[in-house]
Amino acid sequence: MSGYTVAILGATGMVGHEMLRTVIERRFPVAKLKLLASARTAGSTVSFAGVDYAVELATPEAFEGVDLVLASAGASVSRTLAPEAVKRGAVVVDNTSEFRMDPTVPLVIPEINAHALNEHRGIVANPNCSTAILLMAVAPLRVVAKIERIVVSTYQSVSGAGKEAVDELEESTRASLAGQDHAPQALNKPIAFNLIPHIDVFQDNGYTKEELKFTNETRKIFEDPEFRISGTCVRVPVAVGHAESVNIEFDRPVDMAKVREAIAHASGVRLMDDPATATYPQPTDAAGIDDVLVGRIRGDVSHPNAINLWVVGDNLRRGAALNAVLIAESLAEQGLLGPSRTLA
Amino acid sequence: MSGYTVAILGATGMVGHEMLRTVIERRFPVAKLKLLASARTAGSTVSFAGVDYAVELATPEAFEGVDLVLASAGASVSRTLAPEAVKRGAVVVDNTSEFRMDPTVPLVIPEINAHALNEHRGIVANPNCSTAILLMAVAPLRVVAKIERIVVSTYQSVSGAGKEAVDELEESTRASLAGQDHAPQALNKPIAFNLIPHIDVFQDNGYTKEELKFTNETRKIFEDPEFRISGTCVRVPVAVGHAESVNIEFDRPVDMAKVREAIAHASGVRLMDDPATATYPQPTDAAGIDDVLVGRIRGDVSHPNAINLWVVGDNLRRGAALNAVLIAESLAEQGLLGPSRTLA
Repeated sequence: MSGYTVAILGATGMVGHEMLRTVIERRFPVAKLKLLASARTAGSTVSFAGVDYAVELATPEAFEGVDLVLASAGASVSRTLAPEAVKRGAVVVDNTSEFRMDPTVPLVIPEINAHALNEHRGIVANPNCSTAILLMAVAPLRVVAKIERIVVSTYQSVSGAGKEAVDELEESTRASLAGQDHAPQALNKPIAFNLIPHIDVFQDNGYTKEELKFTNETRKIFEDPEFRISGTCVRVPVAVGHAESVNIEFDRPVDMAKVREAIAHASGVRLMDDPATATYPQPTDAAGIDDVLVGRIRGDVSHPNAINLWVVGDNLRRGAALNAVLIAESLAEQGLLGPSRTLA
Repeated sequence: MSGYTVAILGATGMVGHEMLRTVIERRFPVAKLKLLASARTAGSTVSFAGVDYAVELATPEAFEGVDLVLASAGASVSRTLAPEAVKRGAVVVDNTSEFRMDPTVPLVIPEINAHALNEHRGIVANPNCSTAILLMAVAPLRVVAKIERIVVSTYQSVSGAGKEAVDELEESTRASLAGQDHAPQALNKPIAFNLIPHIDVFQDNGYTKEELKFTNETRKIFEDPEFRISGTCVRVPVAVGHAESVNIEFDRPVDMAKVREAIAHASGVRLMDDPATATYPQPTDAAGIDDVLVGRIRGDVSHPNAINLWVVGDNLRRGAALNAVLIAESLAEQGLLGPSRTLA
């Protein structure tokens, strides 16, 4: 076939725009493209590479004839509209948290568990941005030795909270430099020259929902319900690019040369680690590229079996749009997309 | 006696200014105050609370008659001048890294190991800012259970790198908002809306010197040469206030109520932890106060014996000036300061 009818749900958001860019730049076989959004922005136009795209209202009927939906309009929108799209024959790659832990929905990072796509019943879930970035760096290390436990602390950019949060970072920083106050709206607390250890809502065990995504999503993607991982998630005054300080404990001492080799050879991951030349990943390096960057690799002075990594990735790309389009490509390759697709 | 002759060495720096403020606000018994600095700023004036203080050149002779030196002018200055001051009868509380690991020099956080002051031979070392802030939060937990291991990731403000770095944060942020480049000078990389996982110089084992200060200084302060702790140190675009994401593994499961109680009752530490009201420490809370703030306390989902903390402190106060003045107060109380002092 010449291509698929692709709908981008949430097309006016930051991730939606990255999805559009990624679909076009990767030359995903598109016969027809539909940009969909809520009543708030439907009727507007999205421009990319000199082309204007009309944004239509996201209704159940809008999914008639659609083969693939890339959805990033929020969990409540996916809850309502994803089943409607599936009912009409589409496969939905959902970037929201809505279906990630649904046992009937595969949660996929294609480089790690593309095989899980075979089980899809119309919806495939994209992991949370921080999980996707972390596991891209961690998964290649599973051949070095068995991973016993991970402790991760994040430095997450405001674009993870949407366009309004990026505007808020800029506006509140300008206000702060002018000696003025700025009341937070998109974020929980003032972000200008500050840190906010609070992303998503608090749970009974004291973790935030964002932090428990590391635990729950990693267990599902690694197909290891006992996998031990603890996260602390912090919003930092950076626009794009999530960084993560990662401590990995293996079941035995590991050869650091093998760790580097595994990172260097992993697809979608780039080793960026040379203390002698002050080479290590920064958000400004990761923003706008597809690869997850890994540096500051070193054996842990506090544990013979542990290592430390510093991982940085573009949360809008690897953490969202790129992962979703890679899922779509994998679905297409496996014949799991389009009118002739097979359903589990 | 009516008071001591006190010299502040490095009086024109950020920590020096905090030392002046702290000495005055805490009513440390001062008979005479001498502000000393290098040739670059000697001859200038430092103002505090409406009083102008002349800054003199720091020469060996400037320490004649001085009882107490609070030093924060860099390691090389302390290397040369601290022995000269001691030779002339002064006790030097040194905020630089120069003497911290010297076995003949006590390294002291007064709330934790004031007893070590008895051993001083004229020089007492102040710990690194990140170590002081961390241990204030961690030391009270040693009564709950034995600590087996700590993994800490920092979010360090630019004031840790001095006044020039604070100016650089502001100027480079203005430039970034205006779409202009700004070459870093005080810091290793551009800090505006960015993260720099590189503080102090790299060591052969891949850690930075800053990171190994956690390991070396904690072992000395806790008098436990095997204490297991690993740090990752990251500079963040914040002016004042260091934050630390801390994972502590004990030798047994701990009662979280006891953890909270230990933090709540510790001197110099404030519990700031109520998820229901989105209460947790931020740098903007910690900047300008003496207490170390602790929040986000929770049992670790990845380990039955581990907990997580989020710790924030003013790096210029608790991490430097306040700790130094508390040492001086403790020395004075113990009769270890002034002409009648006893030396080990």
